[in-house]
Amino acid sequence: MPTFLDRLSHAENTAGACLCVGLDPDPERLPVPLNELPLPDALREFNRAIVEATAPYAAAYKPNAAFYEAHGLRGVQVLYETVAFIRTLAPHALVIMDSKRGDIGNTARFYARAAFDDLGADALTVAPYMGADSVTPFLDWPGTCAFVLARTSNPGARDFQHLPCDGRPLYRHVVERVAAWDAEARGAAGLVVGATDTDALAEIRELAPGMPLLIPGVGAQGGDAAAVVAAAGANGAPLLVNSSRSILFASAGAGFAEAAAQAARGLRDQLVR
Amino acid sequence: MPTFLDRLSHAENTAGACLCVGLDPDPERLPVPLNELPLPDALREFNRAIVEATAPYAAAYKPNAAFYEAHGLRGVQVLYETVAFIRTLAPHALVIMDSKRGDIGNTARFYARAAFDDLGADALTVAPYMGADSVTPFLDWPGTCAFVLARTSNPGARDFQHLPCDGRPLYRHVVERVAAWDAEARGAAGLVVGATDTDALAEIRELAPGMPLLIPGVGAQGGDAAAVVAAAGANGAPLLVNSSRSILFASAGAGFAEAAAQAARGLRDQLVR
Repeated sequence: MPTFLDRLSHAENTAGACLCVGLDPDPERLPVPLNELPLPDALREFNRAIVEATAPYAAAYKPNAAFYEAHGLRGVQVLYETVAFIRTLAPHALVIMDSKRGDIGNTARFYARAAFDDLGADALTVAPYMGADSVTPFLDWPGTCAFVLARTSNPGARDFQHLPCDGRPLYRHVVERVAAWDAEARGAAGLVVGATDTDALAEIRELAPGMPLLIPGVGAQGGDAAAVVAAAGANGAPLLVNSSRSILFASAGAGFAEAAAQAARGLRDQLVR
Repeated sequence: MPTFLDRLSHAENTAGACLCVGLDPDPERLPVPLNELPLPDALREFNRAIVEATAPYAAAYKPNAAFYEAHGLRGVQVLYETVAFIRTLAPHALVIMDSKRGDIGNTARFYARAAFDDLGADALTVAPYMGADSVTPFLDWPGTCAFVLARTSNPGARDFQHLPCDGRPLYRHVVERVAAWDAEARGAAGLVVGATDTDALAEIRELAPGMPLLIPGVGAQGGDAAAVVAAAGANGAPLLVNSSRSILFASAGAGFAEAAAQAARGLRDQLVR
C-alpha cells in the first residue's frame, strides 16, 4: 500500500496544488436554491454540488464532524454520503475527517476504526492534550495520517498553546513529541498549524521538515496563500492548505457551485509551487 | 430550569452516592449470552441489561462515543438508543456524553447542539487545547455541564499536562482558566481529574472548591473509592466517580447483569458520604 506521503503527492499532482476544501456546511449560510429542502438533505445536496464543482482543483476535502453531528443520526449519515460522493466525483482526492479526537489508548483505537475503517477517511485530526497513548494508536493504520493540533489560529490558542513551558511555548513541545512518535518520518503523523502567522509556520517547518502540515485559515480567516507556501512548502515539503468559507459561500445565489469552483481555482493557482 | 449542580445533587440523593457508570461496551469482552447477536445489536442489548441492573445505584451514566462510532451509523444509533433506555430505566440519572470534543467557537456550538439538543445529554467532556472559544460555547446551555480535561491518569498524561509552565504544571493553568470561564461558579463548567493520584485531586479541589469534578479511574484502573471521596468530596462538594470495566465486565457469563449490579452496589456503598 502506498504511504500517506505518496498519496498526498499524487493528489497534489492531479489537482495542481495542495488545496484542501473544508466541507463545513453551516445551515444558516446555505445558498438560496437549497433552502427548499429539509435540513440534512440540503446539506447533502450542497456538499454534492460543491465537490462536483471543485473536484478539478482540490487535492483533499476536510469535512468537520461537528457540522454533521449537530443534525443527529441523519446528519452523520450525510457525512458518510459525502465521503461516498468524494470517492466518485473526485477519486484522486484525500478525505480528512476533522474531528479532533483524543482519548486513552484502548479508546483511541476505536476512534481510529471509526475514521479509517468505517467512514473510510484517509486522515483525521487529533487533539494532543492526553499525550502519547491518545495519538500513537492512529499511526498504526497503513497509508493514513493523524494530524495533531499544534498551533491553531483561533483566539483561544493563546490560552494554553503559547504558554512558556521549560523555556519554549507548549506548541513546540507538541511538535517535538509528535515528531518523535513518528520517528521514522513515515508521514503517519502530521501537524495542524494555522495559516495566519507565517513566522510560526516557518519555525514549525524547520522543526519538522518532512512532516505533513494541515494549514487552515486562508481565505475568510485572513491567511495569505502564497506566503503560506513560501513559509511551509519549500522544496516540495508536504502540506495541505485548507479553505472552507471562502469557497463554500462564495455566492449565496443560484450560481453558488460555479462561484465555488472559481474561488477554488483561484486559490489553487496561488498555491502552485 | 434547575442548574446542573441541583440536578447532580438530586441524582446523588436518589442513587445514594455519586457513582457514574461508564458505558464503554468493548465487543471483545461482551458476556457469552450476547455473542449470538450481530454486533451493534449486541451492544444495545448489553447496555440495556447493564442500565436496568445498575439503575438503583447510578447517579449518572457515561457512554464513551468512540465505542459507538467505531461501528458506523448503526453504532451511533445504538448510542441514541442507549440514552433513551437511560431516560426510561433510570429517569433520575444524568447522561454524560464522553466525547472529548474541542474546536473553534462557531464549530463548538455545533458540537453543543449535537450533545445537548440532539442526543439530549446532560453533560459532555471537552478537550482544552484550543482554549477559551473552544470551551465557553458549551457553557451557554442551561442546566448542562462541560467537563474539561484537566489531569488525566493515562500514561500519556505526563507528556503535556505535567509540563512546568510559568512555575506550575500545565493542568493547573487549565484548572485556573476553566474556573475563570465559569466565574459565577454556576457549575456549567467542570473538570475531569483521574482517580489514581489523590494528592492531585485534593490540590485541584482546593483550587476549584465548588466545581463539579468527573473522576474516572476507580475499579479496574486502580483508584480507591473512599480515598477519592475524602480528597475531593468533603462538605458535599460536587463530584461524580466513574467506573466502567469493573462494573460492565464483572462477569462474562449468563449472570453478567446481576454481577454488574453487585459491583455497582459495592462501589456505590464505598462512595456514600
